[in-house]
Amino acid sequence: MLTIAIDMDEVIADAAKKLEAWYQRDYGRVLTETELYGKNLDEAVPSLHAGVFHQYANTPGFFRDLEMMPCADSILEQINKSYGLYLVSAAMEFPNSLKDKFDWIEEKLPFITWKQICLCGSKSIIQTDIMIDDRIRNFRSFKGRKILYSAHHNMLETGYERVNNWREIEEKLL
Amino acid sequence: MLTIAIDMDEVIADAAKKLEAWYQRDYGRVLTETELYGKNLDEAVPSLHAGVFHQYANTPGFFRDLEMMPCADSILEQINKSYGLYLVSAAMEFPNSLKDKFDWIEEKLPFITWKQICLCGSKSIIQTDIMIDDRIRNFRSFKGRKILYSAHHNMLETGYERVNNWREIEEKLL
Repeated sequence: MLTIAIDMDEVIADAAKKLEAWYQRDYGRVLTETELYGKNLDEAVPSLHAGVFHQYANTPGFFRDLEMMPCADSILEQINKSYGLYLVSAAMEFPNSLKDKFDWIEEKLPFITWKQICLCGSKSIIQTDIMIDDRIRNFRSFKGRKILYSAHHNMLETGYERVNNWREIEEKLL
Repeated sequence: MLTIAIDMDEVIADAAKKLEAWYQRDYGRVLTETELYGKNLDEAVPSLHAGVFHQYANTPGFFRDLEMMPCADSILEQINKSYGLYLVSAAMEFPNSLKDKFDWIEEKLPFITWKQICLCGSKSIIQTDIMIDDRIRNFRSFKGRKILYSAHHNMLETGYERVNNWREIEEKLL
């Protein structure tokens, strides 16, 4: 059975949507798709505001109620039957997110067991057959099949197998 | 630079000592070295008590003040200069331990950055050049050099490179 490591934020859970909503709440500014194209959130706002997203993400509770990416849950349930599935999140930068992420998975993806969850700092020590991630830095020392999940910040990256949504993951893997 | 994954409980932090102390507190029984030789804690107590160690380990705060294994901190600081060091703990079975483990590392091993911490369920997806662990199950799909750290429960295991304390790790790796 092939093993697969799937990232959480911007792949399974829509963290960017909530970060942008909180930014709008605090600064009254909607970040448009055009502004965000090819950029991280902190590159798309005045440099004075760049640190705010890190603060948001380390707020206890921030990750607890993120929206599911469309169809991610039902397709993950299918993947879980055919692959050795692991949810791997570089969560350690935000230590207050650890329990929230665990609880989110337990609530929203009840077919995932604790053995399938990995909250790490660097993904450089993770080796599976396939990895789906929105950050190309996580592919650097990865030896398996790399699938880039589209997000505003990676739209200018070329040279990777890419998926734009979970339907495309379903087509490729199931 | 070689990479090394080092386990936390029973290797860096003395979880068993606190589990045994809590058992004594609640049941008035000291578990002797002879009783524990070759056994897990839950195999060394009456079956009615077997679940208690899992409860202890998932108590918020349990892992926050564990004792450091003798010399682990100073030798880890040296290892950190010569290896790509990762602390890898199968902590996901005890979700209440996640933040405690992070805070413990931050306090006791301040030279370790968040990028070097990995709290997982199964270690089967971890690949580094060397792994030090007290559980042989964590070596099963590991392809690098396996070093078994002695603990009461693994004393009957043969066929592994073994260390009994941190001085022996120092001799082997530094």
